[in-house]
Amino acid sequence: MSDLISALTGRGLEPVTDADVLAAHSVDHAALVLPGRAAALVRARSTEEVSAVLRVAAEFGAPVVPQGARTGLAGAATAVDGAILLDVSPMDRILSIDPVNRLAVCQPGVLNAAITVAASEFGLRYSPDPGSWQISTIGGNIATAAGGMCCVKYGTTPEYVLGLEVVLASGEVMRCGRETAKGVAGYDLVRLFCGSEGTLGVITEATVKLSPVPAGRLSLAAVFGTTADAGRAVTAIMAAGAQPSLLELIDNVHLRALEALRPMGLPTEAAALLLVAADANPAEELAAIEALCTEAGASEVYRATDAAEADALLESRRNAYHAMERLGTVLVDDIAVPRSRLAEALDGVQAAAARHGVVIGVIAHAGDGNLHPNIIVHPEDPASLEAGRAAFDEILEMALAMGGTITGEHGVGMLKRDWLAKELDPVNLAVQRRIKSALDPLGILNPGKVLAG
Amino acid sequence: MSDLISALTGRGLEPVTDADVLAAHSVDHAALVLPGRAAALVRARSTEEVSAVLRVAAEFGAPVVPQGARTGLAGAATAVDGAILLDVSPMDRILSIDPVNRLAVCQPGVLNAAITVAASEFGLRYSPDPGSWQISTIGGNIATAAGGMCCVKYGTTPEYVLGLEVVLASGEVMRCGRETAKGVAGYDLVRLFCGSEGTLGVITEATVKLSPVPAGRLSLAAVFGTTADAGRAVTAIMAAGAQPSLLELIDNVHLRALEALRPMGLPTEAAALLLVAADANPAEELAAIEALCTEAGASEVYRATDAAEADALLESRRNAYHAMERLGTVLVDDIAVPRSRLAEALDGVQAAAARHGVVIGVIAHAGDGNLHPNIIVHPEDPASLEAGRAAFDEILEMALAMGGTITGEHGVGMLKRDWLAKELDPVNLAVQRRIKSALDPLGILNPGKVLAG
Repeated sequence: MSDLISALTGRGLEPVTDADVLAAHSVDHAALVLPGRAAALVRARSTEEVSAVLRVAAEFGAPVVPQGARTGLAGAATAVDGAILLDVSPMDRILSIDPVNRLAVCQPGVLNAAITVAASEFGLRYSPDPGSWQISTIGGNIATAAGGMCCVKYGTTPEYVLGLEVVLASGEVMRCGRETAKGVAGYDLVRLFCGSEGTLGVITEATVKLSPVPAGRLSLAAVFGTTADAGRAVTAIMAAGAQPSLLELIDNVHLRALEALRPMGLPTEAAALLLVAADANPAEELAAIEALCTEAGASEVYRATDAAEADALLESRRNAYHAMERLGTVLVDDIAVPRSRLAEALDGVQAAAARHGVVIGVIAHAGDGNLHPNIIVHPEDPASLEAGRAAFDEILEMALAMGGTITGEHGVGMLKRDWLAKELDPVNLAVQRRIKSALDPLGILNPGKVLAG
Repeated sequence: MSDLISALTGRGLEPVTDADVLAAHSVDHAALVLPGRAAALVRARSTEEVSAVLRVAAEFGAPVVPQGARTGLAGAATAVDGAILLDVSPMDRILSIDPVNRLAVCQPGVLNAAITVAASEFGLRYSPDPGSWQISTIGGNIATAAGGMCCVKYGTTPEYVLGLEVVLASGEVMRCGRETAKGVAGYDLVRLFCGSEGTLGVITEATVKLSPVPAGRLSLAAVFGTTADAGRAVTAIMAAGAQPSLLELIDNVHLRALEALRPMGLPTEAAALLLVAADANPAEELAAIEALCTEAGASEVYRATDAAEADALLESRRNAYHAMERLGTVLVDDIAVPRSRLAEALDGVQAAAARHGVVIGVIAHAGDGNLHPNIIVHPEDPASLEAGRAAFDEILEMALAMGGTITGEHGVGMLKRDWLAKELDPVNLAVQRRIKSALDPLGILNPGKVLAG
């Protein structure tokens, strides 16, 4: 037994070193990100245990990779050599729900969906809804600043985090933020930890905002023959001051993949389908949006007449990734561009696909200009892999050239750490590194994630 | 001419050293915060000039106090000894309005209200509405993470800031954030600068989100005989899942001061008046809110029947501070407590007032649990000053004891820097200091603000 393992055991922890278990815990949902060899897995049950792990890690200079459900798509939870995999998913209790102050206090391993279930008895919900909401944890959502479908109206995860308990690299336990609706005492450390992907500290408790459940929701689907028309519709909807609670785009590649997965009469010849939902005055809002879609050139518009029909429409969107998986391994990309350039970005992705001879389907949080080009590769074929990676890189270049970002919501992780320096200016990058050093002087927290080594 | 002044002049800057001008620029709106003796005032007209000032300051180890309209209430813009007062208010151009992407790019000296005026031709507005919105700058709003009345529904300033250009202590110019609706590339430096009160860098450009102007707004005023009833009404409104666009409380002291300022038939015998506005389905929303107010014990409820009448109701709220100024010098406090404890906080403030024999009126952003106890002092009378300060401190202690914060929206500045250590735990405070050192190793940026020296 190594000294590191002995030290962990000596602190009352139960490190797992079984090779199969370690291998299973060494990856997240990022395809093709290669893990290093972890030294041990510790399943933490309390803040004290998290602190103990970090104290041992600091003593040994051992890297620590914080993990939740490992549903991330950028390799932020991927093992690095010699790492202690610190799994906080056993810390899965909702500690309190306060309906008057509209707060929930949660341990990090609580599933996103579980918060909404618990809040629903008070007519409240936890709004942010990443695609993974039924399987991802609130700790991971916060650590990756997760987005989702309702962001176009309701914003992303960080806007819903009021307070955190964080264990620092030193093992010290810190509270930041507050329990009040407003508060500006000192620097906003809560926001610094949001999206820091486990590189600045380990989140062990979160106080999140709850919101009233909208009274009703309706949706529509609009079919477009060209990406330009679909893009024009999105632009028109947002420029008109509409506030859709969801504004998603499914491209032709996905429409065909979805129909192949389960025939449901999707328009497989269309260039794009827009899905739009509204939840304030839904009938009135959707009537206005329908008119804008038609004006932009929609060939057909289907209105769901009740919530059940609306949910069915959205189900196809939720199955998009699954449908693509039947075509090969999915290399998931995630760019955001100014929403006015959506059509241009869609066309750019297909140009890259054609150039490299790969299949790429795009689903997009269209209202936010956030595109997920899903690139199909066949890892057993090196040429396919190379072509997929070349297309992946070209898409990131394109996003930057359009004034966009290399990651709209999935994060940097290991997948895009070399790209960060292309998006941020050198002064910004230097500040990022200074902050990392200020909080983790030994560099033991999730090294090689976000910032390249 | 001192070496510092020569160096500024040598960089093509025009430092002002006139004693009267310096004195006028050495304070903000925080009563009783004593300024130090500034060395010079520089009115910067460009990012390059801001950078030049910081390079000179770094060379001389001279403190720099960034300033906008100096309407802050916590002394963040107050002069310190030997400081260069760096006024960025001449940088007052709106650089672009993009209605499709709902963005405005502004120099820091643009007034909050000017953004909304410019955006209004596109049916958009800049939502955050601090009380000072007509006279405060966007740079100052961001540097103080300013709140306002519509926060209860629309959130505070930081939620509306997408990107920043910042000049660091070294004089280097950095961009952070993005122009897209979503983006998670690297640590959230934008949020770190929001509320940092000029201690980490000088904001020289901001990209802010614009929002659709709500179609209509209505409001009501509800009269309560006891603070407990008013508090119960607020609790009931928020627990019912209502989303008022404004939920303000005016206490008895303010009602009487307002009526004395300009008789308008306010209920001067009431313990509190609640002002509530709604802007989604206003008639329907206010009917529900009226019922909740009546149920909680409101003695009367007035509904405004149109927008003009609604605005007139709100006018009294906006005059509250002005009305109190007629009673003496106003020491403005700013606490936030869990909104469920609003009544308890109101009673606690009056207990402190009675105990110290001072007049304190409270106006509150009630829906956010954010109270502004306005303490009347007579600076020429040392006993009055001492009593006012004792009450001020007691109110902060009370907020902390109630799980609240020492500042809901005005910031720490010089006024509350010694209180920060009472709110934050020692580990948090140490992290705040490490971040300050990482960004400003020489400690020249607004020293003695936020963090005590």
